[in-house]
Amino acid sequence: MSHARHITLPKGFLAAGVACGIKPSGKKDLAVIAGDADCNVAFVTTSNQITGAPIQYVRRTWPRCHGLARAFVINAGVSNVCTGEPGLRDAATMAKLAAKQLGTTGDKVLVASTGVIGKRLPMAHVRRGIESACQSLSQRNDADTLGAIMTTDTRPKSAVVMTTLGGKRVTIAGIVKGAGMIAPSLATMIGVITTDAAVPSALLHKALKAAVYDTFNAVTVDSDQSTSDIVAVFASGQAGNAPLKPGSSAHKKFAQALHEVCMELARGVAADGEGATRLIEIAVTGARNQRDAEVAAKSVANSPLVKTAVHGGDPNWGRIAMALGKSEAKITAETLAITIAGQKVFTRGKGCAFDEKSLSRRLKENTVTIQCNLGKGPGAYTALTCDFSKDYISINADYTT
Amino acid sequence: MSHARHITLPKGFLAAGVACGIKPSGKKDLAVIAGDADCNVAFVTTSNQITGAPIQYVRRTWPRCHGLARAFVINAGVSNVCTGEPGLRDAATMAKLAAKQLGTTGDKVLVASTGVIGKRLPMAHVRRGIESACQSLSQRNDADTLGAIMTTDTRPKSAVVMTTLGGKRVTIAGIVKGAGMIAPSLATMIGVITTDAAVPSALLHKALKAAVYDTFNAVTVDSDQSTSDIVAVFASGQAGNAPLKPGSSAHKKFAQALHEVCMELARGVAADGEGATRLIEIAVTGARNQRDAEVAAKSVANSPLVKTAVHGGDPNWGRIAMALGKSEAKITAETLAITIAGQKVFTRGKGCAFDEKSLSRRLKENTVTIQCNLGKGPGAYTALTCDFSKDYISINADYTT
Repeated sequence: MSHARHITLPKGFLAAGVACGIKPSGKKDLAVIAGDADCNVAFVTTSNQITGAPIQYVRRTWPRCHGLARAFVINAGVSNVCTGEPGLRDAATMAKLAAKQLGTTGDKVLVASTGVIGKRLPMAHVRRGIESACQSLSQRNDADTLGAIMTTDTRPKSAVVMTTLGGKRVTIAGIVKGAGMIAPSLATMIGVITTDAAVPSALLHKALKAAVYDTFNAVTVDSDQSTSDIVAVFASGQAGNAPLKPGSSAHKKFAQALHEVCMELARGVAADGEGATRLIEIAVTGARNQRDAEVAAKSVANSPLVKTAVHGGDPNWGRIAMALGKSEAKITAETLAITIAGQKVFTRGKGCAFDEKSLSRRLKENTVTIQCNLGKGPGAYTALTCDFSKDYISINADYTT
Repeated sequence: MSHARHITLPKGFLAAGVACGIKPSGKKDLAVIAGDADCNVAFVTTSNQITGAPIQYVRRTWPRCHGLARAFVINAGVSNVCTGEPGLRDAATMAKLAAKQLGTTGDKVLVASTGVIGKRLPMAHVRRGIESACQSLSQRNDADTLGAIMTTDTRPKSAVVMTTLGGKRVTIAGIVKGAGMIAPSLATMIGVITTDAAVPSALLHKALKAAVYDTFNAVTVDSDQSTSDIVAVFASGQAGNAPLKPGSSAHKKFAQALHEVCMELARGVAADGEGATRLIEIAVTGARNQRDAEVAAKSVANSPLVKTAVHGGDPNWGRIAMALGKSEAKITAETLAITIAGQKVFTRGKGCAFDEKSLSRRLKENTVTIQCNLGKGPGAYTALTCDFSKDYISINADYTT
């Protein structure tokens, strides 16, 4: 039996994924990723103003843990969102149960939940699951661990990048669950990244924030945003490199490798959006500034008319121009150029002649790139999304509570 | 043969709708609505930064016409968007051709086009159409006129309101084409309102802007926004009332009647959104301020997850809370209350107990109202949208150029 390795490839990590009965299907639904010892940790969470109890818990305990954590407990099936004070206590209990098993304190354990909203966690099951997972931690459970955090993701998404820092080989690995959904809940993105590099938590946080900006935050499946999103990175320091110093070349190299992991995971999330049949990259350049580039790229990426056109293999640049024009980014038709799958289709206020049949074929490839040069300045940003198919409607409408 | 009357019910207006060969189907595709004499006129246009040639034309000529216009020429089939200087000349030619027939000048004629983007208008056909329409103007063509501006609208949308101003009976009537689409073009909203009230153009503009704010601007079918939207109101003054004075009770009464017409048309547009099976009203109250209310209501109205849930008859308040929370409006779960079709489902951070089967049935009625009280202040706004069905995807994806 093969054991796909990713999350425990960096030195100093163990993991386990078990089925404890939260998912009615009986599938694996509880994962623990743990360091041999405390790790430097950083995380980013959703910007939605409505947040689940686990998000509130980790935000509250964070100031007490001095950038250190031992483990991450994640369950799927029930998201523990909109459950009031009892839900907050459940989140804290999850952390405490894992802490007890691992010989640490609750504030050293991060928690995350994904699944149905508005329902309490079945804590008897969760308790059994946490105990069983903590007792079976190993380097042979990576696939089970990833399976236990997935909901309707159609494929597992993991990434591994290796590099050297100060002569020492370091590994950065990540897993993510994407914008799949358990109706009647929300799409939730939960990412776990492990590394054996020695990185002070402040630098880890800076590198993660920078990496997330144009990777996970560039993904939009349907413009909706979960109440439970979290991406956390654990650094065990066991690679033996000298702890990274701010602004050093090693710091930059690490940040770049972390960015690569995040990008691979983010592309996986976009390509596996609900009902998706292909990945769409919206690359905006020439924007007045960075902010304009992001706003313009996301306006196109969120446009149902653009996403349905790509789904239908229709090189409809009118919809792209419309989606750019409705955004708050500064746009004029006269300076705008649009290229679809390498074919220039619009420039200086007018459409270009092109072979529609051949371009339509290229729109049906696995990855479609739409480039929009606004002709206004140096701002650039690439948004990641997927096409919009009838399956999106089926997944989200035809299921009734 | 019956002649449905609306746009020519107010005194002083004639109309015609003809087929001149712009639509490949051979259906009616060119309409002229004309006053017996110059009318006081006001209009509002799209806020999209990419605009069609007709929009650019009416904006340019407007300062020259002193708030007066004689007629409105509208074609469907080709939108004359992204056609450069030649397209602008075509728009001006349309106005001039109608002006010649009607014995006025081109700057007294408004023009609008809806249909395919990026193609030149077939001007020989358009010329024939304008001549033929101007020669057949009457009060018996209202249905043909409305038919000629429709694209994939599944039903005609018109409204008539009567009131008295200073003892005189006045009529306000309107027609609108909605967010139907001719692939590969954009959804476009074109509205024409006629009234026999005597209203100075400045007041007319003020009343129209106020009416549009929470009617046409409250409609969102898919968050996408056309490059060709225009709503114009023509006032013939033939009702014989004393011209309205700013702030008078007659002014307020007129503004309210105009608002009623716009609201009825806007609800028609939302209910007839692409693939729509029902109208959804998102009524936000208790927002910190008016702007927050609008932002929050539109965030819910634009959420594909909310719109698919309603389509599936799923009373999924989690998605509504999510859509509110992701908006820029100030939201806290603790002060939020959500009511779906009269049933309170969420209050003070937690879901309420309710009969899911009965609520699911009510979600399948023609109009579904979702009320969200943010508990923060006096701001209120109601957004209008429709449910999101597989037909939306079919209409917009399965058609390939």
